[in-house]
Amino acid sequence: MKINVVKKVFKANDLVAQENRKIFKETGILAVNVISSPGSGKTTLLEKTIPSLMPDQKSLVIVGDLQTTRDAERLSPFAQQVTQINTGLSCHLYANQIAQSLGDLNLKEADFFFIENVGNIVCPGEFDLGENVKVVLLSVPEGDDKVAKYPTIFRVADVVLLTKVDLLGHLQFDLNRVQEDLSKLNATVPIIQISSHNNQGMDIWLDWLTKRRKEAVGRQAKFVKEE
Amino acid sequence: MKINVVKKVFKANDLVAQENRKIFKETGILAVNVISSPGSGKTTLLEKTIPSLMPDQKSLVIVGDLQTTRDAERLSPFAQQVTQINTGLSCHLYANQIAQSLGDLNLKEADFFFIENVGNIVCPGEFDLGENVKVVLLSVPEGDDKVAKYPTIFRVADVVLLTKVDLLGHLQFDLNRVQEDLSKLNATVPIIQISSHNNQGMDIWLDWLTKRRKEAVGRQAKFVKEE
Repeated sequence: MKINVVKKVFKANDLVAQENRKIFKETGILAVNVISSPGSGKTTLLEKTIPSLMPDQKSLVIVGDLQTTRDAERLSPFAQQVTQINTGLSCHLYANQIAQSLGDLNLKEADFFFIENVGNIVCPGEFDLGENVKVVLLSVPEGDDKVAKYPTIFRVADVVLLTKVDLLGHLQFDLNRVQEDLSKLNATVPIIQISSHNNQGMDIWLDWLTKRRKEAVGRQAKFVKEE
Repeated sequence: MKINVVKKVFKANDLVAQENRKIFKETGILAVNVISSPGSGKTTLLEKTIPSLMPDQKSLVIVGDLQTTRDAERLSPFAQQVTQINTGLSCHLYANQIAQSLGDLNLKEADFFFIENVGNIVCPGEFDLGENVKVVLLSVPEGDDKVAKYPTIFRVADVVLLTKVDLLGHLQFDLNRVQEDLSKLNATVPIIQISSHNNQGMDIWLDWLTKRRKEAVGRQAKFVKEE
């Protein structure tokens, strides 16, 4: 009984996610679902990423948090538009929360649509938002055993950003262990080592992101944008 | 419709949790629900805590993880008995998972029953396991804004352990901000600064824990144990 209900929720969510995906494609925007534990550096990453993409490439942001508008406030100086969704008790964003926000956003004016999910590496992996890519952050202080312990999210990642690598000298952390565990779950996923503190790896990450946008939107969408 | 179902799940869980609580009381054991984000140091804390309580005070452990038995393996040298629960896709433990494990454990032979929940600071706050106390860990690398952003779990904490305080010199972290945010949500909750690296705060934590056990089990349970 319980399983049936859960399945219905998943199915309804997936239908809305498909609609979102269609809209992203039509408007030539790359939707990026940013997922990690609390405090792995999602907002800091976006604070660095969005200005680096400008002025050529513009970004919209949706931020999901249980409470507060702190992350939206932090990102509003950089993004074209920022929407904060307070989820209350919910541990992830739903596709319909994204859908409801799309009407207020100038999708055609932007190139990237960043969705900063609620800090959690379990539930957000289950709920498709219609994004083009899932970016999963793992910060060095969380420890090198997290890929094996939370496999569901790492299995569906399109890229894994190992963040706070400037702390590698201060903490016990075995990079090989992370790479080995990931290779078993998601053999081809790239791992990018990032430090928002000293900008290590930012160029590789920006390059990855820009290439994904080109692949996802293709020629037709570009033409629409150039009109 | 969806809300009704969710309410039913909560109610069923609460009934089982009440039964668990009765068993903990009868057997004179303090049940401690340990909750945090992934990588805040739950297992490391228990690796330090359980041997420090011995030989006078013995511990049982249940560890919840999506996958792997790594945490159980780490704790088995110290605890009297360790049970690993693999939750698969679930982002928290349910009371019935605890109830099902109790039959295999010698509750009367132990003083503390540590439940290491799945790494998540949203969902575990919603599901009573029958524990006597909820211990919530927040690690310094997660950042000083997490209390305000994840208020539900900090509101129900019986103690907040600020972990990895040995990293305070390496990271921007405003202790006052954490204290202020907590005082608005949970005015009387103690905050203990802990470092499993240099043992800072361990004596305060052990003292807090031992006092809670004395309060919770009272005279009658002690008498039962001394038979």
